[in-house]
Order: sequence, then C-alpha cells, then structure tokens
Amino acid sequence: MATYEIVPNLSEGRDAATIDAAIHAAEGAGARVLHRTSDPVHHRSVLTIAGSASAVLDAAVALAGVAAERIDLREHRGVHPRIGALDVLPFVPLQGGSMEEAVSLAHAAGTRIWERYRIPSFFYAHAAHSPERRLLANVRRGEFEGLTARFADPAWHPDRGDIAAHPSAGAIAIGARPILIAFNIELADGDLSIARAIAKQLRERDGGLRTLRALGLRLRDDLVQLSLNVTDYRATPLHRIVELVRGLARAHGTRVVRSELIGLMPREAAAAAASYYLGVSPPKPESISNS
Amino acid sequence: MATYEIVPNLSEGRDAATIDAAIHAAEGAGARVLHRTSDPVHHRSVLTIAGSASAVLDAAVALAGVAAERIDLREHRGVHPRIGALDVLPFVPLQGGSMEEAVSLAHAAGTRIWERYRIPSFFYAHAAHSPERRLLANVRRGEFEGLTARFADPAWHPDRGDIAAHPSAGAIAIGARPILIAFNIELADGDLSIARAIAKQLRERDGGLRTLRALGLRLRDDLVQLSLNVTDYRATPLHRIVELVRGLARAHGTRVVRSELIGLMPREAAAAAASYYLGVSPPKPESISNS
Repeated sequence: MATYEIVPNLSEGRDAATIDAAIHAAEGAGARVLHRTSDPVHHRSVLTIAGSASAVLDAAVALAGVAAERIDLREHRGVHPRIGALDVLPFVPLQGGSMEEAVSLAHAAGTRIWERYRIPSFFYAHAAHSPERRLLANVRRGEFEGLTARFADPAWHPDRGDIAAHPSAGAIAIGARPILIAFNIELADGDLSIARAIAKQLRERDGGLRTLRALGLRLRDDLVQLSLNVTDYRATPLHRIVELVRGLARAHGTRVVRSELIGLMPREAAAAAASYYLGVSPPKPESISNS
Repeated sequence: MATYEIVPNLSEGRDAATIDAAIHAAEGAGARVLHRTSDPVHHRSVLTIAGSASAVLDAAVALAGVAAERIDLREHRGVHPRIGALDVLPFVPLQGGSMEEAVSLAHAAGTRIWERYRIPSFFYAHAAHSPERRLLANVRRGEFEGLTARFADPAWHPDRGDIAAHPSAGAIAIGARPILIAFNIELADGDLSIARAIAKQLRERDGGLRTLRALGLRLRDDLVQLSLNVTDYRATPLHRIVELVRGLARAHGTRVVRSELIGLMPREAAAAAASYYLGVSPPKPESISNS
C-alpha cells in the first residue's frame, strides 16, 4: 500500500492542548503522527503525519476542523507569516506513492474542507493551477489580515470556496510536494535587516542556492533567525547551507548561535552531513541502520 | 520475534567470489545480508547479517564452512591482524534481543563449528569465560602464525575444540557485544610510528577515549591508517574522535586525508554527528525518517 505524508502547519505554538486535540483527530482518522514541534515565538506548530492516501486525507480534513474550532487568527500574533488557522497543508508521496496522487489528495482535501467547514483554500507547489501560485511565499503574501483585499483581485480568487476568508480561520495553502527539510538558523544579532539580507543572498529566487527558500525573522531583541525550506536536500545539502550562512554571518559581523530542525529529516540528509564533516569518503547514506 | 546481527570478519578482501559464496551461504540459512565491504590491503571483508536467533546461528556456522573451504591462512598476507579464515564472529542483540541470548548463540556457534569443521574458537567480549579474553586484541595477539605457541600455554587453550589450530583456517574469535562502529581514518604520512602513537593516545587501554579501540596500520608508502572500533558511540561520539584525531595529526605534522566506515552505523550516530557539525540544538536523533 502506498504511503503519504502530510505536514500540517497550525497557527498555534503556545497552547499544547490544541495540538493534542489536532493529533487526536489525526489518529482518530487512522493516520500515524510521527513528530510534533511547537514554537511559541513563531506561534506555530508543525506535525508530521503518515498513512494511506485515505487516512492522511481524512486526517487533513479533521485537522482543519480542529484548527477552525480552536484557533482565532484575529487574535493571533507570531513572527511567522500565516494566512490560516491551519495555515499550510502539504501532501507528500512516500513509499509507493506518486506526486499525481498527492495532487489529487490536495485537491480533494480542499473540496472537503470547504464543504464541511467553509474555509477556502489556495493550491500551491505541484497542486497549483497557475504558475503564480507555485511558490508558497506568493500565496501567503499579505497574510491573514490581507485576505479580504486579496480575494477582491480576480487573479487571487481561491481555488476552492467563496471569495471570502473564513472569519476566524482565514484560508489554507494546500499543496503537493516532495520531501522538504525545514531548518532554522539563529544569528547572535537583533538587527532584522541582517537576517533579511542573508536570507536574500541565500534564496533561489534572488540568485542564491538552488531550491532554497529563506525568510529573515526576529525572535528576540538580540536574536534573529533564518527560516529555511530546503526543497531539494540532494541538490543543496545542509552542510553547504550552514557553511555558507556561517561565512555570510561573519561578513555581516555576527555569528551563528544554533540551528534547529522542524519536523523530520530523511536519513540520507543526516548521512550526507555526517559524511561531509567526518570526512567519510565515499559518503555512504546506505550505511545507516535503523538500530 | 527478536532480531540478532552477526558481523563476520573474513580473511579475504581480494576474491569477490569467496565473499559471494559466503553471502550465498548466509542467505541459504535464512538470514538477511544487510551490507558487505572488502578491503584488498587489509585482505579482509566484513559482512553485516541480520535475522532471527536461529537464522543468524545457522548463517554463522555455514559461513565458517565456506571460509574454511576457500581461505588458506598459510598464504594470507594483509595489514590487519587475524587468527582465522573466519577471523571474528560477533553476535549482536538488535530489536527484542538480549545480550544473554547473544552469548548463548556465540557459545552454540563455537560448539557447532568445532563439531562440523574442526575449527577451535575463543570466546570474547560478553561471551568470554575469563577477563583476559574480554578484549579482542588479547585474543588475537600473535595472530594465526602464533596459534601453535599460544595453544601450548594452558591459559590460552581454546574455549571450544582441541588445543591445535585448524591447519588452514586457524581459529575463530566468537563474541557477543552491543552495536559497534568500525571506523578508519587515513593520515597523509608513510610513518607507521605516527599512526601507532596517535592510536595509543586515542585508545582506552592507554588512557585515551573511553570505549575506543585503536590500531595503527600502514596502507601504502605514503599512507597510514587508524583502524578504530567505537564500542560505545553514545559515550564517545564520532565527531569527538575525528576532531581529536585532526588535532593529534596536526601536532604530529601530518593531516587527515579521509575517513571510512566499515559496515553500518546506527542512525543515532549519524544524527549526532550531523547535529554537532550543523549546530542543531538540541540534537534530535529521533528526527531522522526512513525516507
């Protein structure tokens, strides 16, 4: 049986009970919750959930219901951009799965969530119906607060649902994509412009590393963060990103404090980083056992 | 069902057909061969084989037969110390397995190999009957060529079999132990005394890193090697070893060329190295997926 993964990003990083309820709903739908992570400054949680096509689809719909019931975006303040209570919902093909089927699941989720909860959605990445919607950053521009203005533009009508956001739950970016590594790097500096400058130097759309998405965010008065999505960890391995950021940070007169993994990373990515730094040659991703 | 692993070290690193035959014998016994690696300079191959208790026991006995039939130690020259055609045979408890059962399997393998092939064995590590035999280095001292002299000493009678080595297959060190990482580091120098000095500074029995076994070997006129057994990768992570060796190599006026993994390493060890060098904090070995 083919396995799929969903990685719902929920706009709640402080109230553990809401995330517990979301996990409970996903498990009730027959899916397996592999990982959870919550960040109070981002005010955001990321779940990693796997199962059959029908189990992850049911889990996705159930999660949208829990998020709409318990999260009110009108009162939500965090450093990470968001358009919805359930903000982002990617479908990822794993063993035996196909991108085509992941796209169908994304579209079906959009339909069912609209029918049941009246929350509209945009389709992004492989599930996008137009090139402008491929990039998640484009879909999320203007955030929750800008949704009404956005929907007024015919070019930004939602892919599912009416041209009005759900009053408290906003809208959802639903996508289909390959495995991605979400990786944050903190810099010992309070100057957001430095994080933004480094993010700009890093990201693909501004001429940086291929397949990399990067945002600069402020965590504290003395701490900024690069929030990274590594969309092809084989083309752009983590060690190349980290070493480049270490160099750019030095050039900007600051330094890397720590890195942080959000969700899971494939064992091949860990093996590649371990091999690079330990000097193992040839690198041997197949040499990692489960034990 | 409990899973066990055997990691047979065979004194043949040049003739692939012999290793193919060994693998065929192990698979014929119902075990699964996870990995193979051969080194012509060591003249040695290491297999990683998993299965039920009875499957790995049957595979171990079958392997001893193939090794005895195809490998003649009287003509064997390699840089790695050895006492037998099948030189070392550790049993490792994996999921659901126990060290107690691994010890029983090691003892049973010694009995059956003696009965069937007339090859005597020493028991080492957790399977040892006396403290002097715990360390593999002690059991292997004097190598194949010194076995006759060794057996003449009542303190070194074999644990199974008569006090005479098999004429061509020698003897076998059969053990039970936890998972171990076999890791080699090459130095850009032909001076074996440097490798030996660094190995001495590294290894536990000479006051170095806890749980580390280290040998200095010469690979070429311009290349020496540290051959390492990391017997507790949680206590002594790979990055600590590699960074220490890089420093010691510099102090001896040389440098590390490359490292090499023999067999498998647990995903937790790869995650620990990746986390250390990428600056991920807290380290997250549970964050590595199978995909």
